[in-house]
Amino acid sequence: MAEKYVSERNLKFLLYEVFDVEALTGYPYFEEYDRKMFDMVLKAAVELAEGLLWPVFQEMDRNPPEMLDEVVKVHPSVKTILREFGSGGWISATVPDALDGQQLPHVIADSCQFVFSSANYSASAYPGLCDGVARLIENFGSKELYDTYVSKMRSGIWQGTMALTEPEAGSSLSDIVTTAEPTDKGYYKIHGQKVFISAGDHDAVENVVHLMLAKIEGASAGVKGISLFVVPKYRIDGDGKLVSNDVVTSGIFHKLGYRGCPIAQLSIGDKNDCRGYLVGDPHNGLRYMFQMMNEARIGVGIGATAMASAAYYAALEYTGMRKQGRKVSDKDPTQAQVPIIEHADIKRMLLFQRAVVEGSISLLLQCSKYVDLQKVSTNNEKEKYSFLLDILTPVAKTYPSEMGILSISQGLQCFGGSGYCDDYPLEQYYRDARIHPIHEGTTGIHGIDLLGRKVIMHSGKAFELYLAEIQKTIEGANKVPTLKPHAQQLSEALEKLKQVTSYLVGVSQDKGPEYFLADATLYLELFGIISIAWQWLLQAITIQKALKNELPKAENNFYQGKFYAFRYFFAYELPKTEGLVKRLSNSDGLTVEMKDEWFAD
Amino acid sequence: MAEKYVSERNLKFLLYEVFDVEALTGYPYFEEYDRKMFDMVLKAAVELAEGLLWPVFQEMDRNPPEMLDEVVKVHPSVKTILREFGSGGWISATVPDALDGQQLPHVIADSCQFVFSSANYSASAYPGLCDGVARLIENFGSKELYDTYVSKMRSGIWQGTMALTEPEAGSSLSDIVTTAEPTDKGYYKIHGQKVFISAGDHDAVENVVHLMLAKIEGASAGVKGISLFVVPKYRIDGDGKLVSNDVVTSGIFHKLGYRGCPIAQLSIGDKNDCRGYLVGDPHNGLRYMFQMMNEARIGVGIGATAMASAAYYAALEYTGMRKQGRKVSDKDPTQAQVPIIEHADIKRMLLFQRAVVEGSISLLLQCSKYVDLQKVSTNNEKEKYSFLLDILTPVAKTYPSEMGILSISQGLQCFGGSGYCDDYPLEQYYRDARIHPIHEGTTGIHGIDLLGRKVIMHSGKAFELYLAEIQKTIEGANKVPTLKPHAQQLSEALEKLKQVTSYLVGVSQDKGPEYFLADATLYLELFGIISIAWQWLLQAITIQKALKNELPKAENNFYQGKFYAFRYFFAYELPKTEGLVKRLSNSDGLTVEMKDEWFAD
Repeated sequence: MAEKYVSERNLKFLLYEVFDVEALTGYPYFEEYDRKMFDMVLKAAVELAEGLLWPVFQEMDRNPPEMLDEVVKVHPSVKTILREFGSGGWISATVPDALDGQQLPHVIADSCQFVFSSANYSASAYPGLCDGVARLIENFGSKELYDTYVSKMRSGIWQGTMALTEPEAGSSLSDIVTTAEPTDKGYYKIHGQKVFISAGDHDAVENVVHLMLAKIEGASAGVKGISLFVVPKYRIDGDGKLVSNDVVTSGIFHKLGYRGCPIAQLSIGDKNDCRGYLVGDPHNGLRYMFQMMNEARIGVGIGATAMASAAYYAALEYTGMRKQGRKVSDKDPTQAQVPIIEHADIKRMLLFQRAVVEGSISLLLQCSKYVDLQKVSTNNEKEKYSFLLDILTPVAKTYPSEMGILSISQGLQCFGGSGYCDDYPLEQYYRDARIHPIHEGTTGIHGIDLLGRKVIMHSGKAFELYLAEIQKTIEGANKVPTLKPHAQQLSEALEKLKQVTSYLVGVSQDKGPEYFLADATLYLELFGIISIAWQWLLQAITIQKALKNELPKAENNFYQGKFYAFRYFFAYELPKTEGLVKRLSNSDGLTVEMKDEWFAD
Repeated sequence: MAEKYVSERNLKFLLYEVFDVEALTGYPYFEEYDRKMFDMVLKAAVELAEGLLWPVFQEMDRNPPEMLDEVVKVHPSVKTILREFGSGGWISATVPDALDGQQLPHVIADSCQFVFSSANYSASAYPGLCDGVARLIENFGSKELYDTYVSKMRSGIWQGTMALTEPEAGSSLSDIVTTAEPTDKGYYKIHGQKVFISAGDHDAVENVVHLMLAKIEGASAGVKGISLFVVPKYRIDGDGKLVSNDVVTSGIFHKLGYRGCPIAQLSIGDKNDCRGYLVGDPHNGLRYMFQMMNEARIGVGIGATAMASAAYYAALEYTGMRKQGRKVSDKDPTQAQVPIIEHADIKRMLLFQRAVVEGSISLLLQCSKYVDLQKVSTNNEKEKYSFLLDILTPVAKTYPSEMGILSISQGLQCFGGSGYCDDYPLEQYYRDARIHPIHEGTTGIHGIDLLGRKVIMHSGKAFELYLAEIQKTIEGANKVPTLKPHAQQLSEALEKLKQVTSYLVGVSQDKGPEYFLADATLYLELFGIISIAWQWLLQAITIQKALKNELPKAENNFYQGKFYAFRYFFAYELPKTEGLVKRLSNSDGLTVEMKDEWFAD
């Protein structure tokens, strides 16, 4: 196993040098904190990852969940992990002090999440789900729901889940058919099937609490008829004892990767004895759920980046150690072989990985900072951050997911044949990472969300705010002589994004939604590259500031390496926008006009 | 399991309509054949794949080779497959009649290989290796070697292998340390270690015949000191019995995919009793081996394309059946859901797969045709085809390998969450395919081979011939009005390739080999896209000819679908050259100047 999977140095660079999270402590809500405390939290997260998660990373994959006698058995460490995360306050990190939480900024909590996911993504999924479900109940549930469920999940004794997907309703949530029949006893009777439920059932907890989408009988068709329910595996009877709530696990899926966490199929109410408890108002379920879904989407981005981080450090270690061949400028076979990191093509692959990882985590922490600023600011400012989060969420979910796969694949390639074998962890990262473009909304869905909704909503207000944020960074970079060409390059790319966007809005008007959205996935890809270029330019301003000073060797190495990763992104990745812009400027409707039957043979 | 994994219709389109392989029967060497016989051979291959290979495709993955009591146990069907391939003449398909072969054109044999690999790549590897080893012995070995080994391998009773890689010599073959000590008895004593040997040992055969690279004591350093030996697992003693030849399997590797075929680690001569038999002259081993390596590289291209083909047809079947959501132009939730193939984004993913698969197999059969033409032509013509094969081999190996992964990944994405689970075959294709950019030379190695050797060799002669072939196709397309814009587009891309190439040759002179070859992998990518665009334009000429006629519905669907796949390639893939050209026109030496220590942290 590799020795390193995450860079604390880089996290601190982003938190303190780029995003100045210390400034958050100037707001009353965060005034109890200071940098020293943030550092302590990060240190504790690193130690927890090292001591509890990393040691079982491979083991959890090799011993995946099994279903025996109707019990889903998971790795024994899951129980320890959930309890430790609970008692350590990690499942309540961002919860207000008044609700027994740590009231930590999201940007710090998400940095910890990044550390946990880089050590063991599957393991980090369990407490992450508890946190999300608990927060949703806090925000939208009744006091009774709060009292019954929240503290159990925040202490890691009960598991929370998102129970949305059904056999015939995956990407199309409006088509769920799980029903909720009102009773006069304050609960609903639930009937239905759910599939692909992460941590949907397992033996490390006493109970599982599903946040479940269902339709109250007579509700209108489509998403407007969806309500949200708390549906526990065991409900509490009159004596305070847990009794079966008629939620039966009908099976678990055997997956390519992400094997440390069971994905369950549930049969609900087969015995007509499943009780669901309405969250908030009827028919508003999807709106509530979107709070957790948006958090979960950022969480997927963090997880994808974290895996790519771990793969990168494994590749870095291997390429520094593995000797093979000689420099192309000096191929004398009587000389010793060199570590492969000395080959330009290997450095290219490593820089690609570093550019993806450090660009992505920067964008994700940018989003986390917006979450915090949204919380502490008022009126227009609040709306601004909310809009920025709206437009960036599909990007922050998708770019790391799609590019994380390619990044890990390049990591595997650095190992040659060894990367294909399970003596090294790369093959596991390669399998694990493939889930990310699928769960929490496929890449295609996010493309349509970005172009078909977020970019055009409120007459393009969110898009304008996004452009203004980037423009601010470009202006900052223009003041640094070494960065002027890069500022110019991003400025040109941004101009093209604007042109493509208004061209597509024109297509929407002239040719309708099919033509407008046909290449939404490519639009999302373009948007993603530009967003990461923005984040790299933002980092480069700080890097250049640091490099002006006399630095200790290790620090100089750090900033120089980051500067090359930044240059790599602008030299190798940003040019990919050219081909995308070319395609997106063509509304020939090729994929719209292609007929199904022409695929025959 | 999906019903279909390969298109016979498309193979016939390429063979007869695009490449006119019937014309080969005009040469004396192939005069015994006619179209009817080619069709019979293809039909037999399809039936063999359907009856023998496809049924165990999944089973061989789920029950990978195991090493028990020093025996490598493989799936019981491997024995049947090898014997059937042997007795059916498949392992001697292209061997001259005079040597008891079928004297079949390579372009037909490779089409069959494509069918076999699409049904079950792992299974097809066993007979493929026997064929390659036998041919090498035929071409370069002594009569004694021929008599002892060839017919056993061609009948599938003994296994052939390529035993090149060592623990400290993978990409750098010049660093092998396996030694061959001459004796006065006509054989050499071999000592060493080999790793990653495909089909390197198993219980479906009576013997394993390694073509092994080793250095005769006192040979010069580097590749010039490498000799080639036949090293059997069991040698034949005086009584004609098989006795141990001191080749011990020290282990097999546990792999991400390609699990139907064992990859072995061998200890050779630990008891000082391993005999190796020299092939050809001493110190010329790598030259001989390159015959088999080049064939194997084309074979990897075929295998990669074949997997992508199978994944594509599985995705096509699923997307036609799976109903989810509604057209973005008509989202009324009271209407029934539509098959997802009706969504433009799904059609985009399917067209991408089809464009990769049918573009790649076209390039591969183009290469096979060159092999045949090289065989039957003389002097300048022979040299021409030989040069074209030299320059195209790295491309035909790498483009399908790299793009096959992306194609299969898009196939998996078409399945959503189901693609991630082993109820469907996509997760297996995803794992299986990842081997291709690694074995038979990594992508990085082929980039350096293409730019650093093939493009510049003989003063750029091979490159000129390549450009001329494409130019011929462009001229043909220019005569078809509908294809003029595409001909123009390819012409411009080709012009850029020429410019980039001469720019890089200039870099080589000004800044030396490190700067010249730093982005050789990207150059190979550019070269690959242009090569596939060429093949698509070539196909489009035939497609347009066919579409002029009144066609039966199925035929019209076929040609229309192909035309859209062609248009897809030119609209979505060819524009990717823009970003590549931009990067390749920059010799900033970013990856050369990046220092190892800057990766620290």
